Amino acid sequence: MTSPSPCRWGILSTATIARKNWQAIRDAGNASLVAVASRDAEKARRFVEECHAQVPQPRKPEALGSYEALLQRPDVDAVYIPLPTGLRKEWVIRAAEAGKHVLVEKPVAVCAADFREMMEACRQKGVQLMDGTMFMHSRRLQRLREVLDDPDMIGDIQRLVLHFSFPGGEEFMRQDIRTKTALEPMGCLGDLGWYCIRFALWAMEFATPNLVSAHAQSRAMEGRKATGVPVTASGRLFFGYNGRESDAMFHCSFDSSNAQWAVINGTKGSLYVSDFVLPFSGATTGFTVRKPEFVLNGCQFDMREGQLEERIDEPSNNAPGSQEAEMFRTFSSLVLDGKIDDRWSSISLKTQEVLDACIESCNKHGSAIPLMGK
Amino acid sequence: MTSPSPCRWGILSTATIARKNWQAIRDAGNASLVAVASRDAEKARRFVEECHAQVPQPRKPEALGSYEALLQRPDVDAVYIPLPTGLRKEWVIRAAEAGKHVLVEKPVAVCAADFREMMEACRQKGVQLMDGTMFMHSRRLQRLREVLDDPDMIGDIQRLVLHFSFPGGEEFMRQDIRTKTALEPMGCLGDLGWYCIRFALWAMEFATPNLVSAHAQSRAMEGRKATGVPVTASGRLFFGYNGRESDAMFHCSFDSSNAQWAVINGTKGSLYVSDFVLPFSGATTGFTVRKPEFVLNGCQFDMREGQLEERIDEPSNNAPGSQEAEMFRTFSSLVLDGKIDDRWSSISLKTQEVLDACIESCNKHGSAIPLMGK
Repeated sequence: MTSPSPCRWGILSTATIARKNWQAIRDAGNASLVAVASRDAEKARRFVEECHAQVPQPRKPEALGSYEALLQRPDVDAVYIPLPTGLRKEWVIRAAEAGKHVLVEKPVAVCAADFREMMEACRQKGVQLMDGTMFMHSRRLQRLREVLDDPDMIGDIQRLVLHFSFPGGEEFMRQDIRTKTALEPMGCLGDLGWYCIRFALWAMEFATPNLVSAHAQSRAMEGRKATGVPVTASGRLFFGYNGRESDAMFHCSFDSSNAQWAVINGTKGSLYVSDFVLPFSGATTGFTVRKPEFVLNGCQFDMREGQLEERIDEPSNNAPGSQEAEMFRTFSSLVLDGKIDDRWSSISLKTQEVLDACIESCNKHGSAIPLMGK
Repeated sequence: MTSPSPCRWGILSTATIARKNWQAIRDAGNASLVAVASRDAEKARRFVEECHAQVPQPRKPEALGSYEALLQRPDVDAVYIPLPTGLRKEWVIRAAEAGKHVLVEKPVAVCAADFREMMEACRQKGVQLMDGTMFMHSRRLQRLREVLDDPDMIGDIQRLVLHFSFPGGEEFMRQDIRTKTALEPMGCLGDLGWYCIRFALWAMEFATPNLVSAHAQSRAMEGRKATGVPVTASGRLFFGYNGRESDAMFHCSFDSSNAQWAVINGTKGSLYVSDFVLPFSGATTGFTVRKPEFVLNGCQFDMREGQLEERIDEPSNNAPGSQEAEMFRTFSSLVLDGKIDDRWSSISLKTQEVLDACIESCNKHGSAIPLMGK
């Protein structure tokens, strides 16, 4: 499957998500993993040993004790950066300056202004910049676009509702970096809200919302001191789109049961995805279109269900063809073809801008933040 | 099936919903329909002819040309009042004064203050007062209560999302009374939002929300003049419940595709009902509990679906055992047993109070309206 000259990857950090992408790089079909770097050489070594034992790479990657050492390697074309958000700006810019293409985790930065600097650094060096939103690369999303584009299915989009939550638990709340101000200042909005915002923007063909409003219902504590990081938050994006008003409401939380659903409601029908971020395990992914029909016949009222379920031949996780393997395949193709596609960083920027507006609104008790012209 | 002495019913008005309840009275098993009244005798006659041809009553009901004539009948125990909201106060009070038990359509009044007068009139005459929210009487709702009460299923409720919409179309927007200020001043909030609010309050065991906020995204027009009736609206109820903050978000519209779904998200799982108001056609009703489980095994991330679908042996519509037939059966039993149950009017009042607060918030551009102590 591997092409004669694969895109050669390095990973900066041994974050948990890097374990999944260790396999995704292997499964991409046009990529090879050269090295993994940590600030702690022993941690890098252990990461490589453990991953290689479970998911062997064609050639065992090297373990490096410094990020800089990885960036200086001439045998690395592209780097995957899942470092904490607070460190992303520095290392994306340093990677670009070293001439490496960059796949950076989300949220892409602490704020959109920082991300603009990161984009500029990549532009100057002619390297690709993309964020790690895996679902953008799924076959399901392509199929959903066809459904949304079909005038007989959903019609004009009027409303989106999105929910992404997981049960962090006590230890998570106390110790996980996602509740720490310095490393992950956006808390659940950055970690989970990002996906809701991205999916909504994608559905709206990346129209910019006119207004954004959000509330953080709870914020993380360190002992008795509030760190201010949102743990549970809701937001709303108001769009004027194709001459119609529509809006997206989302909710995200580190403190609820596992749920990751999206509903798109339109003039003709609605679309339901029960697992829009991390697909439920299986050999297929799916979604449901609902077009209930009300039938009035004298004294008899009926509501016909009108449900169309569709399954797509796409592995959910941990396999070639999965959304994460496709992400690395797409990125690697851009690198191998010598084509830089700025669309990827521009949608990262737009997502980050909406996220910034949500944070601003949270800090202003839900005040509506205008976005147009930003 | 009919008991030796059924509860004897009259219907005030020939509204479309009265056609469905013509059959529901027949299917209740302990009720009989004596007469139907309209201000127009010919309209009443036609209504009775048409309904009786399609769904024959054991004895053909009389057609009366005046509401008052029906209220003066000694052979009528209870009246069903689906008159427009703007007329409900007058006729509920007149029915109570005539000693009739009253089943009134929702929203129960133009405002909660009016409904309190209606309650007082019924209390003074010792007659039952109940609203026409059919789903309150479904077997499904009983089963959902068991699920919510099971500590291993949903856990503590954290969030509810509710959506009820239908495609009114152009003629509806121009002509239907639900877009007319005098008759239905609450527009879609009264017609559709009522169900969302009621379901949320039911789920929260009728806890009073601390705050309510709502927006009317669009309002009905007569020619170029806004009548002010909400056509599309969203609201949010904030609860402090069992020491936990939670909230319900709802959306309702006369201008979208048919949809009527509810999600309850809790600490341990979530509950989904795709048709919480008017069940999809069939011999059963249903709901889904979702408890996805995230499994992390080194490089492999899996999200297991954890979906439990349940079907209940309950006809959706137009049959004995349907929620509307059960509504008339329950009401008739209270009348026949000589027991007045004030719980029914107290939940009507609470629903109306929350609805009033939503209207107030819409008129104040979404300002949060406090409800506690009201």
